[in-house]
Amino acid sequence: MDEKRKTSNRRNYRIALDAMGGDFAPINEVLGVIKAFESKLGGFNAEIVLVGDEDKIRKKLNQYDTSILNYSIVHAPDVVTMHDEPSMVLKNKRNSSMFIGVELLAKRYVDAFVSAGNTGAVLATSTILLGRIPGVSRPTIGTFFPTKNKYPSLVLDVGANVDVKPRYLYEFAVMGSIATTQMYGIENPSVGLLNIGEEESKGTDVLRQTHKMLKESQLNFIGNIEGKDILSGISDVIVCDGFTGNVLLKFAEGFYSLIKSKIKSMGNGNVLNKAMVLLAAPALKKMFKDFNYENYGGVPLLGVNGAVIIGHGKSSPEAVKNMIYKAYELVDKNVNEKIVNALNPTLVTSNVE
Amino acid sequence: MDEKRKTSNRRNYRIALDAMGGDFAPINEVLGVIKAFESKLGGFNAEIVLVGDEDKIRKKLNQYDTSILNYSIVHAPDVVTMHDEPSMVLKNKRNSSMFIGVELLAKRYVDAFVSAGNTGAVLATSTILLGRIPGVSRPTIGTFFPTKNKYPSLVLDVGANVDVKPRYLYEFAVMGSIATTQMYGIENPSVGLLNIGEEESKGTDVLRQTHKMLKESQLNFIGNIEGKDILSGISDVIVCDGFTGNVLLKFAEGFYSLIKSKIKSMGNGNVLNKAMVLLAAPALKKMFKDFNYENYGGVPLLGVNGAVIIGHGKSSPEAVKNMIYKAYELVDKNVNEKIVNALNPTLVTSNVE
Repeated sequence: MDEKRKTSNRRNYRIALDAMGGDFAPINEVLGVIKAFESKLGGFNAEIVLVGDEDKIRKKLNQYDTSILNYSIVHAPDVVTMHDEPSMVLKNKRNSSMFIGVELLAKRYVDAFVSAGNTGAVLATSTILLGRIPGVSRPTIGTFFPTKNKYPSLVLDVGANVDVKPRYLYEFAVMGSIATTQMYGIENPSVGLLNIGEEESKGTDVLRQTHKMLKESQLNFIGNIEGKDILSGISDVIVCDGFTGNVLLKFAEGFYSLIKSKIKSMGNGNVLNKAMVLLAAPALKKMFKDFNYENYGGVPLLGVNGAVIIGHGKSSPEAVKNMIYKAYELVDKNVNEKIVNALNPTLVTSNVE
Repeated sequence: MDEKRKTSNRRNYRIALDAMGGDFAPINEVLGVIKAFESKLGGFNAEIVLVGDEDKIRKKLNQYDTSILNYSIVHAPDVVTMHDEPSMVLKNKRNSSMFIGVELLAKRYVDAFVSAGNTGAVLATSTILLGRIPGVSRPTIGTFFPTKNKYPSLVLDVGANVDVKPRYLYEFAVMGSIATTQMYGIENPSVGLLNIGEEESKGTDVLRQTHKMLKESQLNFIGNIEGKDILSGISDVIVCDGFTGNVLLKFAEGFYSLIKSKIKSMGNGNVLNKAMVLLAAPALKKMFKDFNYENYGGVPLLGVNGAVIIGHGKSSPEAVKNMIYKAYELVDKNVNEKIVNALNPTLVTSNVE
């Protein structure tokens, strides 16, 4: 009853989904949409616009009961692959599900766009077609890292900006704080600056200047944090240049893979080793649960003038569902408007974050 | 018999040990010396010069049978702590075990110096007192990361040089390759450049230029590697700037600590959880064996004009023993001379690495 009332109270949005984006498209995309309407978490209320090969999408949809879905299909004959150069989409792939999806958002036919496709291509296409939010120097992509605490930490940038300036890092901190508060319910999120020592004097000139800017800001800045603090949960938002963030993100994947391979090779030994690994399996599974990116369900592409959620190419139906929910929150909580206010204090003196 | 002959054939060196360096000094240092003489690995043949508080060192030594040891003591009343600013040692701590130890090496009273003390302070003191090897722009510190293979990979730099130029990174690759071959027996070690993509065009200008230098060099350069490749064992030597390397090193420590805390919190649950963790314990222990820094026993401070081995502050007696052995190899294999030849091809046209 309560749930029903909540549903009817929540605004309805149109969300475009790149149905051909992920590695298992359009299967996981279609299943993700079905899951989204099945659970209707928090009174989710939206029309999903599936963008992609209409035949393939319909074929998959026809296998299920679609009566609970509120959807439409926009046909796109072409697909952006993981190997496509990001900058080529605008030149050669204007008929792709990705380009058309972002275009629908640019023309405000939809309120948000979701893709598990080529991240660099979504970034490049969105930046050109949507433009930047006023006051934002560079759009950024973050990733959630698991922590010892209940909440993961948002590390940004993780690859969009290899060369950074203090102003960029400051903006990442502002955008990350707003997104964390609005979309993940973390009040007054702590912000850490990734460095190689706690002292203000540590690191490069860029980091020293950034430290100063963050210290003088309205943000809940806790100072420099080190590599060992990333997973400790000490900081809800962690800012760094895109080179360091990208290396870290991929290193964490490699770490996970190394441990899996060690466990596997242990199990290849004698009966005793096999038994040992078998006995350890439930504990190991539980231990790594938090490392499952699917739980986080994509991240916002922050700084572009439109609501865009990007997810891992391997996104499962569960992950796609969560990406759709995150897109809904991104729009419903006016995240981009709040970013405008925070980064342009003179533009809007009231309602500043 | 064979072992004996080998022993008598190997040259005798004098190795100074900072007996007050580590967190448990001088206990672990003294025990490490005893271990070194007990095992005499590979015909190890040296006199150890223990530098530090003579009373404390003697008190500890007197608890053991020292008849098998070949040692002397050089008294040093002062100690460099982990909190001392590296640059202050030269000004205020000239009576410390660290300063005196490096000075003994600078005057060639000893052939090598070993310390588990403040790494930054050893770096600064050694660079000033010993100077740089001809052809080396910046001394560097590396660390071994475990891999899926038999051998760990040497990542350098991990903190000595935050700002790098292509020439620095090239020199790190040369020095890392020589040390890996001579001290760890890896023939023709592969060299990877840490980047955010495999293509030559990826990363910063510095990385693009470095890629070109490494490609044109005599090194076994395998190209750019990504964060996920670090632990894969694909590359024996991995070069990166000291900021990225330091963040990675500390992140790996944090990762290890997060997993330990997850396991611990699992065991705090009900009886079933407790049993699960108990059953998993042997597998987990085995899995993390390779992550134990003690097995690697310190790393050479590459590029200073003298043989210096630095180790973790928490070094166990086993780690100290391995550090002493590594110092022996560093001297005995003429690593620094080989670096001179490799970086100054016009200086010595024969015998170039």
